[in-house]
Amino acid sequence: MQTITTVAELRRELAKACSAGKRVGLVPTMGYLHDGHLALVEASRAQCDVTVVSIFVNPTQFGPNEDLSSYPRDFVRDEKLCRDAGVEIVFAPGAQEVYPAQFETFVEPGELAKPLCGAFRPGHFRGVATVVCKLFNMVHPDVVFFGQKDFQQCAVVRRMATDLNLPIKIVTVPTVREPDGLAMSSRNRHLSKEERRRAVAIGRGLFAAAEEFRAGVREVEKLIAIAERQLETVDRLQYLELVDGDTLKRAESPLRFPAALCVAAYVGSTRLIDNVLLGLPTP
Amino acid sequence: MQTITTVAELRRELAKACSAGKRVGLVPTMGYLHDGHLALVEASRAQCDVTVVSIFVNPTQFGPNEDLSSYPRDFVRDEKLCRDAGVEIVFAPGAQEVYPAQFETFVEPGELAKPLCGAFRPGHFRGVATVVCKLFNMVHPDVVFFGQKDFQQCAVVRRMATDLNLPIKIVTVPTVREPDGLAMSSRNRHLSKEERRRAVAIGRGLFAAAEEFRAGVREVEKLIAIAERQLETVDRLQYLELVDGDTLKRAESPLRFPAALCVAAYVGSTRLIDNVLLGLPTP
Repeated sequence: MQTITTVAELRRELAKACSAGKRVGLVPTMGYLHDGHLALVEASRAQCDVTVVSIFVNPTQFGPNEDLSSYPRDFVRDEKLCRDAGVEIVFAPGAQEVYPAQFETFVEPGELAKPLCGAFRPGHFRGVATVVCKLFNMVHPDVVFFGQKDFQQCAVVRRMATDLNLPIKIVTVPTVREPDGLAMSSRNRHLSKEERRRAVAIGRGLFAAAEEFRAGVREVEKLIAIAERQLETVDRLQYLELVDGDTLKRAESPLRFPAALCVAAYVGSTRLIDNVLLGLPTP
Repeated sequence: MQTITTVAELRRELAKACSAGKRVGLVPTMGYLHDGHLALVEASRAQCDVTVVSIFVNPTQFGPNEDLSSYPRDFVRDEKLCRDAGVEIVFAPGAQEVYPAQFETFVEPGELAKPLCGAFRPGHFRGVATVVCKLFNMVHPDVVFFGQKDFQQCAVVRRMATDLNLPIKIVTVPTVREPDGLAMSSRNRHLSKEERRRAVAIGRGLFAAAEEFRAGVREVEKLIAIAERQLETVDRLQYLELVDGDTLKRAESPLRFPAALCVAAYVGSTRLIDNVLLGLPTP
């Protein structure tokens, strides 16, 4: 495994892979890797010849009052996890390499970036779309792997790739969860023991609604109410919405699918997001 | 020569060129070709094995009260000019091919897009940056050729390519002029005979200032005043500015170079732009 920190060196290495006709998979991450990331690596290794894991805590997707500085980092551990998982290249550029002083061009997503997290994190998906577009152009991957947990991110990135004619296959990998159902997230490490116990409510709420859906319930308000009941133990519910899985607009009753029940909630001072798909997953 | 109208077919053709190790040049145009465009084609043919001329009147770079519908078009003539010039591929997509119904992701330039034309054409460079980014991703050219006449466009596109890590060489080709100095432009065809005579003032103003510059004058106000005197015969001067050639910010006396003297003026109802570089051209 190689660790590379500059775009120039990354391109040199990948040019070799490209001219050897190898299929390149990219797993974009902000590091502090967990089993969710490793599921993306596994999917890439199954479909590609070379797997690149990028590790970059992207400043442009954090708001001024968000947790950029406290976002968990452990590069040595991340490198070891990647090596053990069979990754060929870890790409870990510094902030100056990605955003040199004169940087000023952004990729601006549209309607898909407005609801859900977009309503509470202005500029977040602009930062995501920009850095992902840059990574796509740095790596030129054949396939990119994202986690279903970041549902809206998947939708925004898919649309960005289509709209900007980036000929890249985007694969969404199911959310990996702790045994009690909590979605894996680097931010889980911020939870105290007591908060960690209460955080289980998020997954429980989603699963309870999904079960009712499987039992035939198609009324939007009813499904939301079922999830909401479980979510009483979180400290602040930022949003809990049932949306059309393609447009991310609020779903109407009777529910058509694919739909997604999406939640963002604070447990203590940690903001967690999660979602379940109802009906067929979006492609 | 082939004329191609879909991205899928374009990619199939260019994949052949790519796997044969051929160097691909792109000349992005809005059609109604003139000798300025043909100079770009010539430059591409000198540097590349395959030249793609895109012909697309890009709706997203026109404002609601601008001349999208009256922009001159003559595709049959354009095709013949390209064939005679030795172009390999004319790419002429329809608006639906470039902007399908769900399109919503834009490339948003920064400070370089704000002065000069950007101040008078809100959204113009967003449209330019977006369509050029899309064309780059459709064609994957090694080199792209733009005309110096569109000075600010060159600056915005260069920065976009750097900022989004598009590994493309961007070449700016000197402005081609009519014998009397009027810069070639598709919009010149809108000029009446009388307007055409008066339009010569634009080039004359720029050249007069450039001559004073060569004679050693470095005071910004003086250089502008010299150009302004010639420009009295235009119907409306939209801007006449001497800017730093790299930042496009207003230049200060004594002038440092590279600098650019840039003008936008109406002759009748036709808006024309032009510029001269003072000192070394920007790379």
